[in-house]
Amino acid sequence: MKTMFRYNWMVRDAWYAWCENVPEEELLRERTGGVGGILRTLFHMVDVEWSWIRVMQGEPDFQEDFAEYRSLERVKELDRRFRPEVEAFVDGWHDGLERRPFYDRRADGTVVIDAWGEIMRHVVAHHIHHAGQLSVWAREVGKAPVSPNVIGRGLIAPDL
Amino acid sequence: MKTMFRYNWMVRDAWYAWCENVPEEELLRERTGGVGGILRTLFHMVDVEWSWIRVMQGEPDFQEDFAEYRSLERVKELDRRFRPEVEAFVDGWHDGLERRPFYDRRADGTVVIDAWGEIMRHVVAHHIHHAGQLSVWAREVGKAPVSPNVIGRGLIAPDL
Repeated sequence: MKTMFRYNWMVRDAWYAWCENVPEEELLRERTGGVGGILRTLFHMVDVEWSWIRVMQGEPDFQEDFAEYRSLERVKELDRRFRPEVEAFVDGWHDGLERRPFYDRRADGTVVIDAWGEIMRHVVAHHIHHAGQLSVWAREVGKAPVSPNVIGRGLIAPDL
Repeated sequence: MKTMFRYNWMVRDAWYAWCENVPEEELLRERTGGVGGILRTLFHMVDVEWSWIRVMQGEPDFQEDFAEYRSLERVKELDRRFRPEVEAFVDGWHDGLERRPFYDRRADGTVVIDAWGEIMRHVVAHHIHHAGQLSVWAREVGKAPVSPNVIGRGLIAPDL
């Protein structure tokens, strides 16, 4: 579990670096699919990751509004604010939490129950999914996307 | 590990069903980013997943050529042929394999060593990444993409 969160943070940081060399208007341009833009996607990744960690723990969540974060620096700032809390939760993860129930009370009154282990994988996959969308838009901008490779990052040391 | 492979297969099967209602020319159309098209991406997902499982086990791999698989039915056929072998490998997965070394001998003579656990996560992330690209192209076609949600699929039963 920790491996995949670390992977996502490496990829996200690489996308921030990628953004440094792209005109802001391209980062903000409305695009087809996903949440509709490059910077908006990075904002969404940060927001959703943190939000799930919060709601699992019964902590208040708040819907951040992208209107307040329409620059790379603002999104990175939000990330620096949220990531330590996510990191602490992920560091404390263990198999005993896999099946802990999360009661998701929907607006229509129904309750859906998700296992925590499912939610953690959802958070991981959510990030990778949106990074895949970024990779298409990167080509639209005319730049090579960030590598999505898991191998080659030194995430797990092989037995030698 | 098994959970995420099962998730990917559910998503892939849902993309096959999605393709049934899209004109073949849209599935074959060249697009910006990734491997350059919808059906080609599904083919690539099937090929790469199987290829990694093969090479880890020291089994001969072969580069399938998309030219031979330019229809939904042909790609699904390939998937039916490859998936049981991947499934058997994934079913046999255990923590003791996480750090087993894979010696990747490159064309230039260098050898890169990857842990099996890293490769397995690479295979999972690779699939999600490409499904993210499909979701952008789905909107280009004017259709809602397949849901990338991990939650809500009954993958892990919560303790109640």
